[in-house]
Amino acid sequence: MTELAIGIDGGGSGCRAAVADGRGNVLGRGKAGPANILSDLDNSLLNIVESAREALRDAGLPAETVSKVSAVVGVAGANVGDYGTRIDRALPFADGHVVTDALIALQGALGDSDGVIGAFGTGSVYNARRDGKLRGIGGWGFVVGDQASGARLGRDLLEKSLLAYDKVRPSSPLTARLMSEYGGNPERVVEFAHTAKPKDFARYAPLVFEYAAQDDEIAIAIVKDAAAAIDENLDTLLWPQCPAICLLGGLAKAYGPWLAERHKALLAEPKGDVLQGAVDLAVKFLQERQKGAA
Amino acid sequence: MTELAIGIDGGGSGCRAAVADGRGNVLGRGKAGPANILSDLDNSLLNIVESAREALRDAGLPAETVSKVSAVVGVAGANVGDYGTRIDRALPFADGHVVTDALIALQGALGDSDGVIGAFGTGSVYNARRDGKLRGIGGWGFVVGDQASGARLGRDLLEKSLLAYDKVRPSSPLTARLMSEYGGNPERVVEFAHTAKPKDFARYAPLVFEYAAQDDEIAIAIVKDAAAAIDENLDTLLWPQCPAICLLGGLAKAYGPWLAERHKALLAEPKGDVLQGAVDLAVKFLQERQKGAA
Repeated sequence: MTELAIGIDGGGSGCRAAVADGRGNVLGRGKAGPANILSDLDNSLLNIVESAREALRDAGLPAETVSKVSAVVGVAGANVGDYGTRIDRALPFADGHVVTDALIALQGALGDSDGVIGAFGTGSVYNARRDGKLRGIGGWGFVVGDQASGARLGRDLLEKSLLAYDKVRPSSPLTARLMSEYGGNPERVVEFAHTAKPKDFARYAPLVFEYAAQDDEIAIAIVKDAAAAIDENLDTLLWPQCPAICLLGGLAKAYGPWLAERHKALLAEPKGDVLQGAVDLAVKFLQERQKGAA
Repeated sequence: MTELAIGIDGGGSGCRAAVADGRGNVLGRGKAGPANILSDLDNSLLNIVESAREALRDAGLPAETVSKVSAVVGVAGANVGDYGTRIDRALPFADGHVVTDALIALQGALGDSDGVIGAFGTGSVYNARRDGKLRGIGGWGFVVGDQASGARLGRDLLEKSLLAYDKVRPSSPLTARLMSEYGGNPERVVEFAHTAKPKDFARYAPLVFEYAAQDDEIAIAIVKDAAAAIDENLDTLLWPQCPAICLLGGLAKAYGPWLAERHKALLAEPKGDVLQGAVDLAVKFLQERQKGAA
């Protein structure tokens, strides 16, 4: 048993790991391929372990140290069925803890405090910690959810551009720009939309915010709809004494100014990122084990 | 050269044909597989011809008569690129005319009169004939269009059911019923939504209307949104002297009561169906040829 803790952020676009000593000082970092445990458990396990080995190598430690560390792995789906237990059993760590991506995000942003976080990237999801208890909403994917996600902003832009093309609704500089990207041909817009993945739609999110800042009426309408969705999700999770709201993800900064005043007043900078949250938790587990062993 | 006219409705779920004499009396009918010319031209051509042969057989005529008739084939995509010409060349009819599905639908519903039609099934699309000129809008598919389609009603129901599950919005008897169909498990709703085809979502459209009639607030909100989309599309196509609006498709009757009064006042029963429109046009072409030959 070494006195090392490894935190792992097992994400759909890649795994990131960091190894720290017993006081939380980060000694090395590693990366590996994606972890999508619900769709590809085997490769997810390989990538989780590989990111940990990389972090150990980066710290100048032998890769086999991996079997002697305390580790926290945060992955989406850890709370679905028996996936958490199955991963826990398959991993080589001395003391492994598989938790949800939500928990490490909360820990990273809020530390040990209560509060609410909303994450806005390709998707959108909300989590609260109140009196230490977690509650998550959203994150159902852009087809029937994720109303404030980048994917929905992009899909909305395409829909409104086609309505403008048909002259059902007014056009705007933004819809004109979108249509011109497809040679003014609505069939090409539709062809794109029917094969686009969430991240392809989400590519348009920065453009929507850019035009909204330039007073484009359709851009403003799209952003206001999404911000209203954020407000109603936050209202669902908030309680009167809630100390803070942290917005995370690539679109967090862009959404800030569009939120209701009651929410703006509670906005706080996240203390650390998701990986930091995993490291913090791993260090806590290490300290508990050391206490237990003492 | 015989004095026969064949009308063919080449649809995505199947081809239907009817053979008529020079005065429009239908002598026989036939069916065959689907025509999706943009995605599968070869099989579409086979099915179009097969439906015509079936109609001739049904009328007690030899199948080789197919090379001696005037025919009108209505298919979606006939106006895209050179598809119309390519189909025209490949078909065996003495005198073939490939036209859009919109034209045969207009002809069927309105005869030779001006007016506006809206079709509401799995998708939604609008067409107008004004002073003999056609204009069509909508029909872009449910991902970024078809706001009043069965597919969108179903998708909307799933989205609102998940919002109710998360307690972001109130639930209703309809959302409770939807969730119970999936064992109360939002993951299963999402799994369905991410593999569902438009017709799978559209399965829920009758349920939405059924609950709207029972004053279910969420059902009413979904139907009102869709009806508002119909109203704004109709307003885009209407002109002051427009004599009639015909609603077509499986959801036509259900939508009637939800439209704006100004549109209800113009509603008229369609004169005939889409296949009838194809037959009417084929008979016209036959009569023109006969005049030319006389």
